[in-house]
Amino acid sequence: MSIYPKPVEELIDHFARLPGIGRKGAARLVFHLLEQSDEEVREFAEAMVSARLNTVFCRECQNLSGEELCPLCSHTERDRTLLCVVAEPRDVAAIERCREYKGLYHVLHGVISPTRQKSPADIRLKELLERVGSGGFNEVILATNPDTDGDTTALYIARTLRPYEVKVSRLAYGLPMGGHVEHADELTILRALDGRREV
Amino acid sequence: MSIYPKPVEELIDHFARLPGIGRKGAARLVFHLLEQSDEEVREFAEAMVSARLNTVFCRECQNLSGEELCPLCSHTERDRTLLCVVAEPRDVAAIERCREYKGLYHVLHGVISPTRQKSPADIRLKELLERVGSGGFNEVILATNPDTDGDTTALYIARTLRPYEVKVSRLAYGLPMGGHVEHADELTILRALDGRREV
Repeated sequence: MSIYPKPVEELIDHFARLPGIGRKGAARLVFHLLEQSDEEVREFAEAMVSARLNTVFCRECQNLSGEELCPLCSHTERDRTLLCVVAEPRDVAAIERCREYKGLYHVLHGVISPTRQKSPADIRLKELLERVGSGGFNEVILATNPDTDGDTTALYIARTLRPYEVKVSRLAYGLPMGGHVEHADELTILRALDGRREV
Repeated sequence: MSIYPKPVEELIDHFARLPGIGRKGAARLVFHLLEQSDEEVREFAEAMVSARLNTVFCRECQNLSGEELCPLCSHTERDRTLLCVVAEPRDVAAIERCREYKGLYHVLHGVISPTRQKSPADIRLKELLERVGSGGFNEVILATNPDTDGDTTALYIARTLRPYEVKVSRLAYGLPMGGHVEHADELTILRALDGRREV
């Protein structure tokens, strides 16, 4: 005999399938939901279906979009000679929050990862090559995470882009602002040393 | 201009309203969902509505139930002289997992908390008094958490039950099995000292 009513167990199962949520955490979320009004729960459910059905990948940058061409790609004042390559849509959001970068983006939807069996064919690299190949870009900025898979991906893309006449750069990695040398891990210090600049 | 398409932002809002989930965590969950099939997302949404609509509170123990009387209350082999009072449905699940307790339960759906403005009227105490008042129970076991609110609630209920002819007990609190005295916090050690038993 299961402890909770069947519909509750089923909803817990769904939540427990989300990344980073265990069965106990899922049960907690479900109990919270069961205390909300019918209306509120129904709105949540509808938002879920609507987000899934009304979201496409922008045909240019591959970011999540409500239309075929996303607002960033169709924006008339972005710098169309600059392309920033990121792993995930949330990376676009993080960079946009800085309000400094004015170029375009390309979302890979993943990184190359030998340990997780992700090959170059599993990310949107073909689309990137097509975009760069059709010309117009002066510089491609690789903004993958500073970890093993992110480095592998950046290196692979840099090498793949070599035949194209385009400058390829990578974000600087080093001590985070406000961080302490004392508390930084060894890899970060190595990166910071490696990327030191004359003052 | 928001970074994500509107339906995505709206779904993130819904997830971010769940306890313990911030906006970044919510975005992570949403991106995961957007990678699932339409079918899967629709099932999740339907499970949500179904859990909300098909779950009631058992008219006896107030636990979540698919029927008017929950499987535990309608079970013919439970000990109907023993009543275990818990704060939340998940506490019933935790105790049931031990497969030892064979009595009935009463779910308060909360605890009395002066700091969080929860009064005795905000928990299902009236229902508890009615059950105990209608007789048949030899013992009421108070199984609220060993924290300030849990203690307050247990004390309040114990006092309220005094006029009834029923034994009132509380779970033992002390060092968890496998725990180390060295690593236990002071309150736990105090509780363990306080609850010491002759051997």
